[in-house]
Amino acid sequence: MEEYDIIVIGGGPAGLSAGLYAARANKRTLILDKPEEGALKKVEVLDNYLGFPDGITGKELLELGRRQVERFGAKVVEEEAIAIKPAEDGRYVVETPEGSYSCEGIIIATGVKRERPRVKNLEKFEGRGVSFCVTCDGFFFREAKVGVLGNRDYAAKEALELLNYTSKITLFTNGKELEVREALRKKLEESGIEVVKEEIEELLGEETLEGVKLRSGEVRELKGLFVAVGTSGATDFARTLGIAVEGSAIVVDKNQSTGVPRVYAAGDCTGGNRQVAVAVGEGANAAINLISELKGAKHVDYH
Amino acid sequence: MEEYDIIVIGGGPAGLSAGLYAARANKRTLILDKPEEGALKKVEVLDNYLGFPDGITGKELLELGRRQVERFGAKVVEEEAIAIKPAEDGRYVVETPEGSYSCEGIIIATGVKRERPRVKNLEKFEGRGVSFCVTCDGFFFREAKVGVLGNRDYAAKEALELLNYTSKITLFTNGKELEVREALRKKLEESGIEVVKEEIEELLGEETLEGVKLRSGEVRELKGLFVAVGTSGATDFARTLGIAVEGSAIVVDKNQSTGVPRVYAAGDCTGGNRQVAVAVGEGANAAINLISELKGAKHVDYH
Repeated sequence: MEEYDIIVIGGGPAGLSAGLYAARANKRTLILDKPEEGALKKVEVLDNYLGFPDGITGKELLELGRRQVERFGAKVVEEEAIAIKPAEDGRYVVETPEGSYSCEGIIIATGVKRERPRVKNLEKFEGRGVSFCVTCDGFFFREAKVGVLGNRDYAAKEALELLNYTSKITLFTNGKELEVREALRKKLEESGIEVVKEEIEELLGEETLEGVKLRSGEVRELKGLFVAVGTSGATDFARTLGIAVEGSAIVVDKNQSTGVPRVYAAGDCTGGNRQVAVAVGEGANAAINLISELKGAKHVDYH
Repeated sequence: MEEYDIIVIGGGPAGLSAGLYAARANKRTLILDKPEEGALKKVEVLDNYLGFPDGITGKELLELGRRQVERFGAKVVEEEAIAIKPAEDGRYVVETPEGSYSCEGIIIATGVKRERPRVKNLEKFEGRGVSFCVTCDGFFFREAKVGVLGNRDYAAKEALELLNYTSKITLFTNGKELEVREALRKKLEESGIEVVKEEIEELLGEETLEGVKLRSGEVRELKGLFVAVGTSGATDFARTLGIAVEGSAIVVDKNQSTGVPRVYAAGDCTGGNRQVAVAVGEGANAAINLISELKGAKHVDYH
């Protein structure tokens, strides 16, 4: 079995940043990058990650990051981690469909799966009007007609956040009842955001999104549609290791520790603001603090 | 008085990342960048910030970041914030030697002052063998003879961290007694790290550091010297606003909130791992969560 000091599960921004710190500290580092597409790969313009004033595509940033980790000796393989098992000697074994790897410490950075509601043409317009994050993309829709797709708190929050950019906002519950807590419901009512409960038949447009067609045939013009139906996290690893989970997020402390010896987590899978900048910072913290735990120095407070 | 929505105090990586998010959310944003040199400006090779596989200088990253925030409409002025005062209408007034600015929310990202012990030629070799961070620069001194300058826990921790890179480590207390807690003292003894208590006369070298000369005239060959004499933080703002301070760090919660309404802090001034990646992530979080508080939505938990 191949032996490593640190295995990072996930090759997105959190995983690459963690792997970079681990490799740079001379730890034998393996990054397991699920061959399926991550959320960042589809981002056409990332311009809120400091250092790229003209923006960069998600794919480009991932390629730069991969070159960077490999420069310091990390190994990246496109295999999906399917199980983490504690070994008798205190180490961990990570299994993939291709084989098993042994390591001393683990950083979970799997990201989150984005639930995609079944709406015709939704994938077609992803990055061309369809977005999953108001904080990321709201800026591109200033003064434009936009919609939010969802019926729960998260959708209401995204709709309210859009008020920073435009007042022409419609919340589409797509045939569902609005299930929003009282405080948010009140804010929604006061905001003037229209709520449409009718089901969506399909998204319309040529190159980019131009509108939605409702079941009744009615067409609503839209330049942007923010999908906010919540996330279903890949928290299976957490459960098998006895790590606490809240909703779809792995619970970590401020050091990114899961509380399980030498197992840390970083990035979107730990909840919070789902931003590249945040993921990169958390990945760095996870690796630094894991390395410190590997040295056995963890419980010394230096500050 | 010029009015802003958000004022960011500090133009380092945390402040620029915060300003970027604030400006991109259409908030009128002012960044006060102290005209004196920040820690990052002197970094010759930054290669652990994801996205720059060939490394970048600290100065270059700061210039890119500045272009980026200005692209989204943030205003950067080179003035030092000297006081923050709550106004009667719930807003804040930030004073500089040049004037006063009013704002609704504040992000403190002042970094920390690095205490420089008075050792001859220390500044001359900064970035040329003299470093302030093992996590950042230890990699460049693999298998080399290195020293750590300091006599407290932080110095002991830096020396122990160097074991990831080399075994030829000397801890110079520069005439002081070793004041290290028991657990660390034991680790130090077991590690084989030599402790030299004699005062340092001067640092030696031509272009780069080559060694130190002790008071007795003895010369010790060194390729690197890590200064670890602790930090004295700029926590005066915190104290005037009633924000909790621990050591030299401003205390924040996981949202980067100080607990004082609409006052957040990010980066080195909040303690933790002093890394560009961490600062950029914390700056993003501070801005996102402050913007959310400005909208009055703070106490709604969306996860």
